[in-house]
Amino acid sequence: MKKVVVLGAGMVGRAIALDLEPTYHVTAVDIDPSQFHWFPQDSQIQKATADLSDKKIIQKIISKADLVIGAVPGFMGYKTLKTVIEHGKSIVDISFFNEDPFDLDSLAKERGVTAIIDCGVAPGMSNMILGYHHHQINVNSFECYVGGLPFKRIWPFKYKAPFSPVDVIEEYIRPARLKVNGRIIEKEALTEPELIDVDEIGTLEAFNTDGLRTLLKTVDIPNMKEKTMRYPGHREYMQVLKEFGFFSKEPLTLQGQTISPIDMTSYLLKKSWEMDPHEPEFTAMKIIITGEDNHINKRIEYTLFDRFDEKTGVSSMARTTGYTCTGTANLILQGKIVDKGLFPPERIGAHADWFLEVLDYIKSRGIQYIRKDQIEP
Amino acid sequence: MKKVVVLGAGMVGRAIALDLEPTYHVTAVDIDPSQFHWFPQDSQIQKATADLSDKKIIQKIISKADLVIGAVPGFMGYKTLKTVIEHGKSIVDISFFNEDPFDLDSLAKERGVTAIIDCGVAPGMSNMILGYHHHQINVNSFECYVGGLPFKRIWPFKYKAPFSPVDVIEEYIRPARLKVNGRIIEKEALTEPELIDVDEIGTLEAFNTDGLRTLLKTVDIPNMKEKTMRYPGHREYMQVLKEFGFFSKEPLTLQGQTISPIDMTSYLLKKSWEMDPHEPEFTAMKIIITGEDNHINKRIEYTLFDRFDEKTGVSSMARTTGYTCTGTANLILQGKIVDKGLFPPERIGAHADWFLEVLDYIKSRGIQYIRKDQIEP
Repeated sequence: MKKVVVLGAGMVGRAIALDLEPTYHVTAVDIDPSQFHWFPQDSQIQKATADLSDKKIIQKIISKADLVIGAVPGFMGYKTLKTVIEHGKSIVDISFFNEDPFDLDSLAKERGVTAIIDCGVAPGMSNMILGYHHHQINVNSFECYVGGLPFKRIWPFKYKAPFSPVDVIEEYIRPARLKVNGRIIEKEALTEPELIDVDEIGTLEAFNTDGLRTLLKTVDIPNMKEKTMRYPGHREYMQVLKEFGFFSKEPLTLQGQTISPIDMTSYLLKKSWEMDPHEPEFTAMKIIITGEDNHINKRIEYTLFDRFDEKTGVSSMARTTGYTCTGTANLILQGKIVDKGLFPPERIGAHADWFLEVLDYIKSRGIQYIRKDQIEP
Repeated sequence: MKKVVVLGAGMVGRAIALDLEPTYHVTAVDIDPSQFHWFPQDSQIQKATADLSDKKIIQKIISKADLVIGAVPGFMGYKTLKTVIEHGKSIVDISFFNEDPFDLDSLAKERGVTAIIDCGVAPGMSNMILGYHHHQINVNSFECYVGGLPFKRIWPFKYKAPFSPVDVIEEYIRPARLKVNGRIIEKEALTEPELIDVDEIGTLEAFNTDGLRTLLKTVDIPNMKEKTMRYPGHREYMQVLKEFGFFSKEPLTLQGQTISPIDMTSYLLKKSWEMDPHEPEFTAMKIIITGEDNHINKRIEYTLFDRFDEKTGVSSMARTTGYTCTGTANLILQGKIVDKGLFPPERIGAHADWFLEVLDYIKSRGIQYIRKDQIEP
């Protein structure tokens, strides 16, 4: 039985470990042992409490692994990935760190390692879908609309975050990079709202966020944008807070006390944004690809609507992110992906058989991407 | 020539001093001498720089005054008023402090002093109008809608404050006391929005604030409410900030630094709320009084729309507040009001001749209250 070590046992890491458990020998690692309480009593998953910010500890824990899954918080993602690659272990990563992953490509090749990054839903499946079609037709534009939301809409923000508010706010601050007519341009986050109808829910509002990540480097497509979806109203209130400096990182000194507005704002939002692990929530995504195939203009649309698993309590966020990761991990563990180096998911999608296998895998978990093709005039 | 001492030379205090200057010997007092730069070069107003938080200094400055005007910030209003009364001087006050003024009634009588408080526009003229009609008919209900706003509506708050944001926020925190069917009830501030059309501007939004003040004690009218008007949208954003604890006075400790959210919020709002002294602004008020007069149901409506004085640069806020105060001050200086004790403006309005004289006075300054009477079925 092959050995998989899952670094990080948060909401997604746990779902990954449980999904791999029937087929592999799985070790889940986290600094916080209370995370392990979420595993069923009869689970065969090995649990290891360890501080993953310590390089030596990681090396020890992964020494016998056939594959590593990186599911640590973003701020420690790059360092963890580098440690795993240095140690000669293949890895599928969903830590979504901000550093440039391609810095690690030559290291991965040198160590004979397969390292797949950003392997969640978006980034993740969205990249694979684009990679798949980009390999087949001449893609002109790519649009991705994605959001994870609670079913219950509580005024005013109608939002729950499975991670710290400060990370959400970070997405609302960082300028969004888009591709327009072949050029990368920056637009302010939270701008250019569009109303998007989601069959199962109603109308959502999408706005610019900086979500294209590796796609800005890896594919030569003239028009690309990624937008985040929230319930209508959320964006406006965030815009107001942003406009008034409530998201500012600049420390303020008032009455001799120094604090950054973003820290206070994160603290105040935390109470209402904190996602109860049992909160019924969903993931919605819409991808629109247009392009030319043998002088025929095509429009290909994918829609995803996934809800939390009522029986197991696994959130939709964990399902859609985690099962893209496990589906891809299987390709490595089964010896199908043997290429060495660092791969963003669009590179995986470019291989039709790999892409269709991942799609099948997540479909077997009840996650369905519905594809609709149209010929355009 | 009678002597008037104006304590406080802020936006309103200055307008008061200038309005009284042609008829009286006026001394303007402020801790900040830069306030005096606003007076025209040929002004005969005496200027005194002094710290009005010092009782002894006040006593010295007012020792020869025939009348004192209290125009200090609210937080020092009560103490200043008390000092003036103790010193045996009559006063008209517009500091709008939060303490109970009636505690000073017996002191004022004992010292043979006329002390008129809350003598601005609302409170002020609104109280006088009600006092006048309450004396004539059997009033059943009193509604007052009032707001001072800039003409230019800048997203998102569309608001400028002539005083510190913390004082505005205070109005949005303090529960509003209303009279409903003879009982005083409390409603949360910012609630029960109503859209009010103002001919010269368009639609404004009015909401509950705690503005009835002395009326809750002095008049026996079963239904009374006071609402603040802002541009639509302002209330909603304030409600969001309030809901999320951004107005909380509870100190928070983050990273070892202790600060109250309201202090940070006030600081962040200050930049955009600060009113440029030349900002074109207006005051709008609508008062609706219903009552029964000899078995006839009457509805009496007053509307006020006043704009800043382009020629002199005096703001509408200073005009509508200050000239109610100077109009009333004249009644004392001319020996018409000789009653001793503490008087809220509704007590002045109850004397028809006084009320009509104040109304005439402010009309001579171009401020017109338009009255419309209706007989109701």
